[in-house]
Amino acid sequence: MAIRYELLKTCHQTGARLGRLHTPHGIVETPAFMPVGTLATVKAMSPEELEEMDAQIILSNTYHLFLRPGHEVVAAAGGLHRFMHWNRPILTDSGGFQVFSLSKLRHITEDGVTFRSHISGEPLFIGPEKAMEIQNALGSDIIMAFDECAPYPAEREYVETSLERTTRWAERCLKAHKRPDEQALFGIVQGGVYRDLRERSARSLTALDFPGYAIGGLSVGEPKEIMYDVLEYTVPLLPDTKPRYLMGVGSPDALVEGAVRGIDMFDCVLPTRIARNGTTMTSRGRLVVRNAKYARDFSPLDPACDCYTCRNYTRAYIRHLIKSDEILGLRLTTYHNLYFLLRLMENVRQAIREDRLRNFRDEFFAQYYGQNSHKPF
Amino acid sequence: MAIRYELLKTCHQTGARLGRLHTPHGIVETPAFMPVGTLATVKAMSPEELEEMDAQIILSNTYHLFLRPGHEVVAAAGGLHRFMHWNRPILTDSGGFQVFSLSKLRHITEDGVTFRSHISGEPLFIGPEKAMEIQNALGSDIIMAFDECAPYPAEREYVETSLERTTRWAERCLKAHKRPDEQALFGIVQGGVYRDLRERSARSLTALDFPGYAIGGLSVGEPKEIMYDVLEYTVPLLPDTKPRYLMGVGSPDALVEGAVRGIDMFDCVLPTRIARNGTTMTSRGRLVVRNAKYARDFSPLDPACDCYTCRNYTRAYIRHLIKSDEILGLRLTTYHNLYFLLRLMENVRQAIREDRLRNFRDEFFAQYYGQNSHKPF
Ligand SMILES: [Zn+2]
Ligand SMILES: [Zn+2]
Repeated sequence: MAIRYELLKTCHQTGARLGRLHTPHGIVETPAFMPVGTLATVKAMSPEELEEMDAQIILSNTYHLFLRPGHEVVAAAGGLHRFMHWNRPILTDSGGFQVFSLSKLRHITEDGVTFRSHISGEPLFIGPEKAMEIQNALGSDIIMAFDECAPYPAEREYVETSLERTTRWAERCLKAHKRPDEQALFGIVQGGVYRDLRERSARSLTALDFPGYAIGGLSVGEPKEIMYDVLEYTVPLLPDTKPRYLMGVGSPDALVEGAVRGIDMFDCVLPTRIARNGTTMTSRGRLVVRNAKYARDFSPLDPACDCYTCRNYTRAYIRHLIKSDEILGLRLTTYHNLYFLLRLMENVRQAIREDRLRNFRDEFFAQYYGQNSHKPF
Repeated sequence: MAIRYELLKTCHQTGARLGRLHTPHGIVETPAFMPVGTLATVKAMSPEELEEMDAQIILSNTYHLFLRPGHEVVAAAGGLHRFMHWNRPILTDSGGFQVFSLSKLRHITEDGVTFRSHISGEPLFIGPEKAMEIQNALGSDIIMAFDECAPYPAEREYVETSLERTTRWAERCLKAHKRPDEQALFGIVQGGVYRDLRERSARSLTALDFPGYAIGGLSVGEPKEIMYDVLEYTVPLLPDTKPRYLMGVGSPDALVEGAVRGIDMFDCVLPTRIARNGTTMTSRGRLVVRNAKYARDFSPLDPACDCYTCRNYTRAYIRHLIKSDEILGLRLTTYHNLYFLLRLMENVRQAIREDRLRNFRDEFFAQYYGQNSHKPF
């Protein structure tokens, strides 16, 4: 087995789990947030900066690496870790999500998906076997089964047909996966917002005994209450002995609520994407540092933050950089946002350790949504 | 006096000078190359990275900071050093060069220059007094007199009229400068490629006894041989006891040739600008890493370089980043190019110390222009 999940304890106030995920490239303390490094780089960051802020694992995108530079180039470089100079764990997604969300003229059959590259327009194909071939070449520690992430809202019939196919694809992924001792393959539970479909998906996938499970098809436009509801009935369907990964979720409130509901891993482009637009996450909600009102504000982004950015730079300077399209501006906001989420997860783990995650959540939200706070996400 | 130039020795093989420039923010070992931080940031770099590669002094642009964020904002932040989190020396130019090269509808009178902002289009004015007011507010260690940099080619009559006015402006700058104990004001010798005009300019300015002198109006399109010729007759007109700064020069060959001719300081956007386009400086000439031939080249940018980029990343990875518009790509090429020039200057200083700069030049060029080398700059 490539990975091993060690459950350290469960919070008495919530169902949250404190754990350790042992991987070929080191240990990930869970619950964990994974910064997204789509094209073999977490946008604007160096690997050393990610280590300095204690990112324990990053996510990279199979679809994007398949298109550029191509998985054969990465394999020739000695794998993704060596290619990008990152020696900690990497999780790659299956490519499914991007095939459906980015490419045009896609055509789904039982075999897989034919689509056109969103870069070159050339026709390409990814199915379960191809998704395994690409991810085996990349050499990531955790790889994902090829799935279809149904949109929201979607008719029950569409979601049902899609999840049944995704389950058959998951079986084919298991068979096609060539490096099970070095790379752990996770199954992805789909089923939209239909409880019985989530149950059916979870039952079929757990019967296949994957080393870990993801919950997909959430954070695709549904209200957060619905997402939390789906988590509440889906998480208990997953085995205690395996890690549980909620895909595409990264707002501060959803990370806390997800941990409360027993999720171990999260990923999202939110902190890095909004950073490049001059928007930052703070203990008092969203702060849009490019706003004119910060032109002469010589305080840090978040006075409660002790990151490199907040220790050394003012809102006025960062605003100047962002307004002037200076790269350092994006570096500073990206660094702060990632640091903010990684510290949040560290605090969540500490609260679980002390059986006080519900108290922590209440305290965090009181400040996050408080009177003097900025708009939340 | 804000600065003091200490001449340590002169190379027996050339006229090159080894020196130390003592400034309010520390010592600069000369000959020195100054990375350009136009908008209070050396594009793509953090201050710590610049320190790590041992940049001893940077240059920032008065014109750009006047427009964005405005010198009052920088002054309110506590000056440019605090604003940008850089505690080593800073030199600011006078704004003259950009007023003439960037803005439209400029109108020169004896008083100064009226122009339109290249950002907002609003009408603005900079003259000698305003250039001093802005630079006094920025608080840089070395400030430059407001000058006109005549184009190449230019009629003798135009150059003569221009340099006479630049000399009168230099006198007004001396009078308007409010912080001579904290900021050293350099005069700028103009005169184009006309020997008698260079002599006249140098004589007038040295009579005013500036703490340092720049040679302006070179590297504006003239052949390099002409530039070297101008340096050969202009440098000896400047006092031995003061630093000599050749403005806007940063190609590897010109740095070596300038040092040979007695120049102490250089600045240029070349290394940072070409880096952002995927072009790098190496010991074997220019290497355009975005070229397709590097797609599977897993060697470093310059095998002879021990910088952060060359120790950790391959041409294939950097090419992938640059082709994908990833910020880390620009960071890595920028880091390497600046490191390359800073190491070159360190080698130049060592060669002067050992009275072998001519030998060093020959060895450097033999490789730089050698058989297996790339195209030079
Ligand atoms: Zn911070
Ligand atoms: Zn290098």
